[in-house]
Amino acid sequence: MADLTHLIQLLAKLPGFGPRSARRAALFLLKRRESLMEPLAAAMAETARQIRPCRLCGNLDTLDPCAVCRDPRRDAGLVCVVEDVADLWAIERTGAYAGRYHVLGGTLSALEGIGPEELHIDALLARCAAGGVREVILAMNATVEGQTTAHYIMDRLAGSAVAVSRLAHGVPVGGELDYLDEGTLAAALAARQTLKG
Amino acid sequence: MADLTHLIQLLAKLPGFGPRSARRAALFLLKRRESLMEPLAAAMAETARQIRPCRLCGNLDTLDPCAVCRDPRRDAGLVCVVEDVADLWAIERTGAYAGRYHVLGGTLSALEGIGPEELHIDALLARCAAGGVREVILAMNATVEGQTTAHYIMDRLAGSAVAVSRLAHGVPVGGELDYLDEGTLAAALAARQTLKG
Repeated sequence: MADLTHLIQLLAKLPGFGPRSARRAALFLLKRRESLMEPLAAAMAETARQIRPCRLCGNLDTLDPCAVCRDPRRDAGLVCVVEDVADLWAIERTGAYAGRYHVLGGTLSALEGIGPEELHIDALLARCAAGGVREVILAMNATVEGQTTAHYIMDRLAGSAVAVSRLAHGVPVGGELDYLDEGTLAAALAARQTLKG
Repeated sequence: MADLTHLIQLLAKLPGFGPRSARRAALFLLKRRESLMEPLAAAMAETARQIRPCRLCGNLDTLDPCAVCRDPRRDAGLVCVVEDVADLWAIERTGAYAGRYHVLGGTLSALEGIGPEELHIDALLARCAAGGVREVILAMNATVEGQTTAHYIMDRLAGSAVAVSRLAHGVPVGGELDYLDEGTLAAALAARQTLKG
């Protein structure tokens, strides 16, 4: 049982898992030894061995520079700044963006003692200063920390020739007005788009 | 990204996980490569390699016969019949049982076409017929399938000298009567325990 207990303890550290669901997952795996448990162990070991952060943008990939930074069809003049690799993946899933990225690795947070030097902000400024970057899109989360970080980067880029934009705020596609918070609705009203002049 | 996509697809097969939580778990793992991802991959591979079902009771363990069946301090005359290894673990966690087990591997189900030959019922009858078993405790879930299976095993053991019991039904410890279903409450009333004669 020692191995099994160890496995359950490790599984319980996964996000969304606790001791009970970890036990359930362990048993589920044990019953699917060949179809799931062994392939998952191998995929995990292989991914851990191969995936590294991209030295240019901070994306995680088996290649360094990553596939996004290597792709000559992507616009190197457009840099989308995100908090985390998960946000980069989310934007990639839209298929609507053909520029490059810059992963900050978090947000500024006085409470948690995260200052600009803990994030990859200097690297972003260096990319902008090196030339070739036309526009920086600030795609931080619409949270206090995200917007504070966006403001800070905006300030640092104030003297630069690079254009800076941010994601639009508004009604989510499929969203019902009745269920939206006032802030979002107010932002959608203020940023209303003209249909007929 | 191919490795990562493969890892996410496998993680999404875990119980309670979907595509979104699998992505989150993959990223969580990638950020904890040495502290979690590599140990988890190793623990999973090692457990998959070592753990086998016990030939006597069906428990999963690195030993065969399992640690429960090998333990000379446990009463071999008492056999607790459970649907699944998870139920065996649940009973072991109580620390209140010092007998052995028999794992059926499921319940009878006409709907899903599971008959007695799909479960380890013959092996249980053989254990009882071989002698040495004094009492069989039917610890199936209190569901229709569980109780049907318990009745079936009871019938098959009718001619045997082995005593058969089942778990008590009643008010769960910490349970509030107001929130209990009528069936449980009726069972608790019927099985009321005398405090003073």
